[in-house]
Amino acid sequence: MSDAVATPSQGPLAMICGGGALPLAIADYVAARGRKVVLFPLIGAADGLPVENYPHHWIYIGQIGKFMRLARAEGASDVVFIGALVRPRILQTRPDLKALMIMPRVLKAFRGGDDHLLTGMARLLEDEGFHLRGAHEVAPEILAPAGVLGSVQPSEADRADIELGLDYLDAASPFDIGQAVAIANRHVLAVEAAEGTDQMLARVAELRANGRVRSAKGRGVMVKAPKRHQDRRFDLPSIGPRTVEGVAQAGLAGIAVVAGATVVAEADKLLAAADRAGIFIVSVPERRS
Amino acid sequence: MSDAVATPSQGPLAMICGGGALPLAIADYVAARGRKVVLFPLIGAADGLPVENYPHHWIYIGQIGKFMRLARAEGASDVVFIGALVRPRILQTRPDLKALMIMPRVLKAFRGGDDHLLTGMARLLEDEGFHLRGAHEVAPEILAPAGVLGSVQPSEADRADIELGLDYLDAASPFDIGQAVAIANRHVLAVEAAEGTDQMLARVAELRANGRVRSAKGRGVMVKAPKRHQDRRFDLPSIGPRTVEGVAQAGLAGIAVVAGATVVAEADKLLAAADRAGIFIVSVPERRS
Repeated sequence: MSDAVATPSQGPLAMICGGGALPLAIADYVAARGRKVVLFPLIGAADGLPVENYPHHWIYIGQIGKFMRLARAEGASDVVFIGALVRPRILQTRPDLKALMIMPRVLKAFRGGDDHLLTGMARLLEDEGFHLRGAHEVAPEILAPAGVLGSVQPSEADRADIELGLDYLDAASPFDIGQAVAIANRHVLAVEAAEGTDQMLARVAELRANGRVRSAKGRGVMVKAPKRHQDRRFDLPSIGPRTVEGVAQAGLAGIAVVAGATVVAEADKLLAAADRAGIFIVSVPERRS
Repeated sequence: MSDAVATPSQGPLAMICGGGALPLAIADYVAARGRKVVLFPLIGAADGLPVENYPHHWIYIGQIGKFMRLARAEGASDVVFIGALVRPRILQTRPDLKALMIMPRVLKAFRGGDDHLLTGMARLLEDEGFHLRGAHEVAPEILAPAGVLGSVQPSEADRADIELGLDYLDAASPFDIGQAVAIANRHVLAVEAAEGTDQMLARVAELRANGRVRSAKGRGVMVKAPKRHQDRRFDLPSIGPRTVEGVAQAGLAGIAVVAGATVVAEADKLLAAADRAGIFIVSVPERRS
């Protein structure tokens, strides 16, 4: 949590970018420190990302050799991997020669859950002399501070739901499963797996609409926490304005995240949207196992 | 698991019926033993159930006093609670005077998860001299026997996914959560909570259609197991022909359930549908904790 902030002396930063608003926000924070940023937006994941303010190279996720060549040419040895990424099918990743040579290990990395995929890619990069950094290491501004973040306070009942949610996420953690759960009145409404947080929240809204969730509107909480032992350099949970929208539509009272271990995208917009919707956002201390 | 089968000497059986095909199947099994059956189909849950072959009384789920009066008049002290039930909102349950008198306890029963709801109702009935029986106690024919049930065999990879699924369901069990999980290539695709098994399977089909699940079609398994410590008299997991349909549409290879602890609805139709679709159904031994 208390990693030293990267300094300009560390040379240019290569950012492999998936979708969403986070990659550019982080690029802006890093650039504001005076560090050079080179973007590698992923075709199929970061399409439409306005990358023109930075040197950039569009790549396919399988083009590991191309990435290494370009990053070295830019003088970048630090690499950040950030943004939304749909689990790719190997044959759609356009492996290049370098990737083909290490394919047995790539395949191994792909076979398990998401953590294995990312850990495998990290190891490939490290073996080639690159250093994988967490987005929160190069731009600590993106992490949620402790406490109630907006102007709405969680109730005692909400606190009980939050504790149950954290208990569940602890228990599910060994299974490399999604990082979010929706709970109301101590009743688990929905659990995230491959569908992602936004779709899990949409499900709660739907369950409410068709009568399968009958807790009163404005009760319950969406809890999001990092998996234990996950490599936080590329897989911290994140929330953003869209999360607030999803929580409001799901009829929940608020959002709980883990302080110092959650990325907050577009914090200003997020807090404004939460206050407007009467949604609380609380950032709780991390549990120690 | 080896409960003695109820005999005619035990008097008429009162069956409180939710939706689906199971209630009548069980009534038929019990009646075939020569035991009298009285149905209490629940308005809003069992609507459309063809109950005319049996003495029956339509009731609202809150009408506990009315149920007890009618069941006593029929000479029934054994009660079975069976069929699909949407978690009711208290104000829609039409509490009668008896229910109102015991409302503090009913409210308490409703507050926790499903298990608490059902356990609470069971206790209310027992306190009034009724005996709650499991459907599998009065009609053991409905339980899945051990082994591969259809003609399709699970592969070694399927067996590994099944073990992972059972591990997850064990871990999630204390949270009174859904009883099913979908896994492919040791990757958790979807977890059931309040939405029910059918909707969880529909989600996997959807995730596949929009590219978020990319394992090959015909890989993976839906695992369904009873929660630990749940009261099996009213809450055994069940599968039926619709489950096979959902699994086929989700692109999974098969279904795993726990032998002796899973209700199989319309077994003939289910096995025929599974064989036709190339879906395996395997019933694994129960784990001991």
